[in-house]
Amino acid sequence: MPRPPQRLLSAEIIVDAALKMIDISGDFTMPGLAERLNVRPSSLYNHVSGRAEIIELMRARAMASIRIDEHGEETGDWVATVAALAREYRLSYSKHPRLIPLLTAHTVQTDIAFGMYNALATAFTAGGFSPAEVLHAITALDSFVLGSALDLAAPQEVWASTPRANEPMRAALAAAGSAPTRADDAFEFGLRVLIAGLRAESSSAP
Amino acid sequence: MPRPPQRLLSAEIIVDAALKMIDISGDFTMPGLAERLNVRPSSLYNHVSGRAEIIELMRARAMASIRIDEHGEETGDWVATVAALAREYRLSYSKHPRLIPLLTAHTVQTDIAFGMYNALATAFTAGGFSPAEVLHAITALDSFVLGSALDLAAPQEVWASTPRANEPMRAALAAAGSAPTRADDAFEFGLRVLIAGLRAESSSAP
Repeated sequence: MPRPPQRLLSAEIIVDAALKMIDISGDFTMPGLAERLNVRPSSLYNHVSGRAEIIELMRARAMASIRIDEHGEETGDWVATVAALAREYRLSYSKHPRLIPLLTAHTVQTDIAFGMYNALATAFTAGGFSPAEVLHAITALDSFVLGSALDLAAPQEVWASTPRANEPMRAALAAAGSAPTRADDAFEFGLRVLIAGLRAESSSAP
Repeated sequence: MPRPPQRLLSAEIIVDAALKMIDISGDFTMPGLAERLNVRPSSLYNHVSGRAEIIELMRARAMASIRIDEHGEETGDWVATVAALAREYRLSYSKHPRLIPLLTAHTVQTDIAFGMYNALATAFTAGGFSPAEVLHAITALDSFVLGSALDLAAPQEVWASTPRANEPMRAALAAAGSAPTRADDAFEFGLRVLIAGLRAESSSAP
């Protein structure tokens, strides 16, 4: 029996297929990817160096859709820069929620990701934070945004109606809008609160 | 050939095995779980109703290790309650980072999880937030904590040294401590900032 013809491969086709596997089952393996693409595993390595590079290519793709607004740097409005980046970052990552723990488990390597982190570092430095605080602020924002991206991908009903909810929790659940408004409102509330706290922290610096 | 003897099964044994599969590959299936436990798939259903219940049992297990301090409610110190819960919640979830997107993709059903959400709802209500704001505050804290749990499970080197980092980002990276101190410091910074923002929001309410 002749082998089936090898498909034309590219790094892009490989990343597409791996991302579909992650969306479905939370992960991918190189042999599983080869099987899905109907190629020999060795063929994959003509285009990518392995699993880590594929994950970095996914990060690059998610980051590429984030518009880095250099405007904030010029006007010195660090708050506007941080808020705009956080909003775009959340929307981009919410498209593939199951990719998130793979990204956080790998070192950020890709140049394109540093576009966003550089813009955040510039903004927080302009806001008066010390270098150590800049990294803390980036990390705290990162954590909030990734958690919010997971929340945006959450089901319509995040909390079941249950007699176990106490009175304050029942009142809170009754006041909730429906998805995605609930998630959007909670994100904007959290972003406003986080930025208010960062402003206070920055102005209380010696 | 005689079939191998059926292992003694329990919901606990099933959850243990599913959690191991998630730690390794990010997910589990009922047939895969049966194979791992060397039982027939139908045997699993004598103990659990299916995948959704297994995920809820994992949530219950993670939540069970969080000490709900009723003390804060009595003294009215909502900030202390929120901070203590956030710290315990992060540590508990960081043990199984790849479980996080499965938990956020499923409706919270388990009674034990409502212990923490009830305590948060009581604390934020005591802090003067309206019911809608209480849900936003819980969601924002949830997002920050889950993102921080992923960060605690991140590799030693979160950002590679690269010429693409600009001057503020290079300075920030140079000031970073090593893991887990880096992640702990960033979490405490973020928690302080988030709580400062919540305090300001609560006191500015009409």
